[in-house]
Amino acid sequence: MNDNFVSNEKLLEQLKWRYAVKRFDPDRKISDQDWETLEDSLILAPSSYGLQPWKFYVVTDEAVRKELTEHSWNQPQISECSHLVVIAAKKDADRGDIEKYLERVIEVRGTPEEELEVLKGMMLGSQKLLEEIGFINEWAARQCFISLGFLLGAAAMKGIDSCPMEGFQPTEYDKVLGIADDGYFSVVVCALGYRNKEEDWLSKLPKVRYPKDDLIKRV
Amino acid sequence: MNDNFVSNEKLLEQLKWRYAVKRFDPDRKISDQDWETLEDSLILAPSSYGLQPWKFYVVTDEAVRKELTEHSWNQPQISECSHLVVIAAKKDADRGDIEKYLERVIEVRGTPEEELEVLKGMMLGSQKLLEEIGFINEWAARQCFISLGFLLGAAAMKGIDSCPMEGFQPTEYDKVLGIADDGYFSVVVCALGYRNKEEDWLSKLPKVRYPKDDLIKRV
Repeated sequence: MNDNFVSNEKLLEQLKWRYAVKRFDPDRKISDQDWETLEDSLILAPSSYGLQPWKFYVVTDEAVRKELTEHSWNQPQISECSHLVVIAAKKDADRGDIEKYLERVIEVRGTPEEELEVLKGMMLGSQKLLEEIGFINEWAARQCFISLGFLLGAAAMKGIDSCPMEGFQPTEYDKVLGIADDGYFSVVVCALGYRNKEEDWLSKLPKVRYPKDDLIKRV
Repeated sequence: MNDNFVSNEKLLEQLKWRYAVKRFDPDRKISDQDWETLEDSLILAPSSYGLQPWKFYVVTDEAVRKELTEHSWNQPQISECSHLVVIAAKKDADRGDIEKYLERVIEVRGTPEEELEVLKGMMLGSQKLLEEIGFINEWAARQCFISLGFLLGAAAMKGIDSCPMEGFQPTEYDKVLGIADDGYFSVVVCALGYRNKEEDWLSKLPKVRYPKDDLIKRV
């Protein structure tokens, strides 16, 4: 670790440069190294208790993307982007997911099992509360949006364009990509690649945000 | 815009360095310039249709933080961090929120009102669907998690520590901070500052993630 952090100017320059791209340049692909880094960014995204209740479907196959386009109100991003990521949440996460995670903790950190008993109790307690209010799937879905935010930020740092998309038919996606069979459900989609400056009228417009003082309250 | 992007190595170095800090150094505060940049990162976070159905409460007042600690299972991050952000979602977003946003579009971009009619129709249609399934508040809550992911990533780029927190009592927070009176509801909390390396045993442990091939499926 060194102090060579990203400067405030550079960070904001990249975040301001980002916008939800409507038209990607279909001829420009994200390089293998850059793509690997974006996948790693997804993996490194935090989640509640570190449970990672998600799976990421990376779609590059043209025929599959054509099919998905039909289930996405024919939005051109689905087929024109370089890499399409479908972020899916674990369906009906249960005790087994917590046990699987703790086994992984033991594997990675070498923690003795008995030292994890208190944590396990807390995790099971939290899960029970979520189950009681019928919120277990929504809890997992919310986590997916953290990974989306993480991915969008990471891509912006790399000068890679993106478009987060909620306008798609989740049940159709779940069928086409086998997501339901895997025990997950699709939550949100993110198209990544490079903007087509000529075609995308949005690329020339200023970002619309409310004034800072309307959105931030200091206490 | 130039090509001086963040390198893959630096991006991953910072994302790997991030972890959910349990003990912050109470004596180290985030500088004003860095804090302003993190606030700007929150403002720049994307949301569905750009509606920004959120408000960010930045809590630095010690007495208020002490009170919030009691509603957060006494977790030390609440009072030990430099800046505490409570991310709240708009309650019962309605037609008025869409109209307010479109007025802002006109103000910022100078778009003639009639050019926004199609977009307005789409937005109202989407909102109606969400209302029909009783999902309007959850839709707003999900957006908050995008801003959380964005903030966590931005802080990591700056070498600023963070801890996303779901372990708090939202209705109490809503009362203490006046969030309910503002027409919002608290969704998730993020403590920011600098890790206390001596006190935080977690800072020395490797990150626990499932193998990449378990989390990513390529199609």
